[in-house]
Amino acid sequence: MEIKTPTLLVDRLKVRANIEKMLNKTGSNIIFRPHFKTHQSAEIAELFREVGISKITVSSLSMANYFSQYGWMDITIAFPLNILEMNDIVDLAKKISLNVLIESSCTAEKLVDSIDSPMGVFIKIDTGYNRTGLSFNDDEIDNILHTISNNNNVIFKGFITHAGHTYNIKGREEIIRIMVEGEAILAKLKTKYLKQYPDIIISWGDTPSCSIANGFDGFDEVRPGNFAYFDVMQYHLGSCSLDEIAVAVACPVVALHPERNEIVIYGGGVHLSKEFIDADNDFKLYGYVVNIIENGWSDPIPGAYVSSLSQEHGIIKVLPETVKKINIGDLIGVIPIHSCMTANLLRDKTRIIN
Amino acid sequence: MEIKTPTLLVDRLKVRANIEKMLNKTGSNIIFRPHFKTHQSAEIAELFREVGISKITVSSLSMANYFSQYGWMDITIAFPLNILEMNDIVDLAKKISLNVLIESSCTAEKLVDSIDSPMGVFIKIDTGYNRTGLSFNDDEIDNILHTISNNNNVIFKGFITHAGHTYNIKGREEIIRIMVEGEAILAKLKTKYLKQYPDIIISWGDTPSCSIANGFDGFDEVRPGNFAYFDVMQYHLGSCSLDEIAVAVACPVVALHPERNEIVIYGGGVHLSKEFIDADNDFKLYGYVVNIIENGWSDPIPGAYVSSLSQEHGIIKVLPETVKKINIGDLIGVIPIHSCMTANLLRDKTRIIN
Repeated sequence: MEIKTPTLLVDRLKVRANIEKMLNKTGSNIIFRPHFKTHQSAEIAELFREVGISKITVSSLSMANYFSQYGWMDITIAFPLNILEMNDIVDLAKKISLNVLIESSCTAEKLVDSIDSPMGVFIKIDTGYNRTGLSFNDDEIDNILHTISNNNNVIFKGFITHAGHTYNIKGREEIIRIMVEGEAILAKLKTKYLKQYPDIIISWGDTPSCSIANGFDGFDEVRPGNFAYFDVMQYHLGSCSLDEIAVAVACPVVALHPERNEIVIYGGGVHLSKEFIDADNDFKLYGYVVNIIENGWSDPIPGAYVSSLSQEHGIIKVLPETVKKINIGDLIGVIPIHSCMTANLLRDKTRIIN
Repeated sequence: MEIKTPTLLVDRLKVRANIEKMLNKTGSNIIFRPHFKTHQSAEIAELFREVGISKITVSSLSMANYFSQYGWMDITIAFPLNILEMNDIVDLAKKISLNVLIESSCTAEKLVDSIDSPMGVFIKIDTGYNRTGLSFNDDEIDNILHTISNNNNVIFKGFITHAGHTYNIKGREEIIRIMVEGEAILAKLKTKYLKQYPDIIISWGDTPSCSIANGFDGFDEVRPGNFAYFDVMQYHLGSCSLDEIAVAVACPVVALHPERNEIVIYGGGVHLSKEFIDADNDFKLYGYVVNIIENGWSDPIPGAYVSSLSQEHGIIKVLPETVKKINIGDLIGVIPIHSCMTANLLRDKTRIIN
């Protein structure tokens, strides 16, 4: 393939298989609302549309505006409502079915003051990640509900959570335990408010738990995103096999240092992001290394890994026998640590293969 | 200021002062060729032009193409020549005075085969960073010189190094020691080859050493870049005062968690980059926190720091008295850890003030 600079390769067949696997696990009574922040690509989005998906999640108003221009008409912005963007949010809600997240009555008041067409509101619940959201027993839940009850355009949709703490756990049982506990918290809230709001749902999102679980009984909606691409982080968490990772960054080899078993690539922090996996003994892993082959890439090269990144340079450590087989001007592939960050950086340098 | 989403504020007065300070330290016999990878901005570049700078450094062909369109006609691409881009490099060399870096005879051969107009070539020397470049006593230096001597269009410019290992050192004396040692290595090479190539120069670059040194005697050229903006990393290294840091990211406050003394901002890894400073006890610092004020920002808020970043969220830890003074919808500023990475992410979301 004719590639001259760091380029994100996306394997369409793998993405499609990842989507179908997740979709098949989702019961017909559960809404599958995938998160599009991972790919941020209208072209990849079509792979979801092909299997019948019409509801999506994004993490910013700008992503919502982008996808709405490609015919996505039912979007949840899974990020605490930014009141500085209120006018633009209200505008978008006139065009599509838009849901926003709220976790304070202050924000709810601003919304009620501004809204002039129907908009869905989820209350963000913290099920243990401790990043955003309210505790299930926080009085602020009732304060918010009281505030939004004053405006008929505000439709209370239910409770939503992102269990990001599954990323800090090693072990599939632990991840499932977080999911079971989270479901119990959200189900309790649903039961409490169901009489008053008979249509509310509970919505769950995060790729580790959704990938490991066999199904999503108990939830009304799931919102994984990263699973479309997966990455080294997900592989380490047990969310996917190496073969299911659907992206690799093709990078030109620009220098060889056999005296220290290193390859220098054109491919740095501005391409891959500086995400890494911290291992023992100060060892930092910035990506697995693969050979670029016809229509894709090989299994990881044994003993090879990205050991450091500058702005434009990447350093790959390899075994002595590997460095002898690599030439300046070759393309070599890097499986990213966190595909969401890498895809964001290479949005304009993406090639979909297969 | 009317800002709704994460926005890089660049204080023009501070940038200008940083440029003038560095320029004033550079003797008239030394070429000041600042690195433009930090800002990647034609508008900021004009501040350099205003003080008479006409020679610049970049780290990719695409940056060289970009700045050439804004009238920058003397550019060094300080990155190992990527032979996959040879045709485009040869094209650019027809339009401007272009210098490239070489560290292997293999690459030199490709260049000699392709070039059809004058181009400058530096040989990259490793003075201890161990990322790229040849050791001063590597036979490959003579191999490269032999190869390029076959083509009259190739102009051997001299020896160049980037002392990136100044970033791993704590202490100004240590940084100056690296600079003195590096100068000695390059000067020895210059002496060795000066008879054969009477016009060769030795070129030095990195912001920590250039900021700390009182002058650059012994070198023929210096190429610092980050100093135009500086950042928390440079402050920690002793390269700058806090007041000299010329950039901050204005971020909307979207949630408050007084129960754990945390503020949630719209401003994550896709805005700030995931660079951090690793401190003791698993403490990670992703940025200092300032108040956004008329025409700029305040000193850092005591006890406040960015403690973690997701894709779009940032978490700021503050003292209990601070969280009471912040409201949802406020703008708060983050001084980035590594301004080059942050500026790259926010290229389209930059506002120059003052």
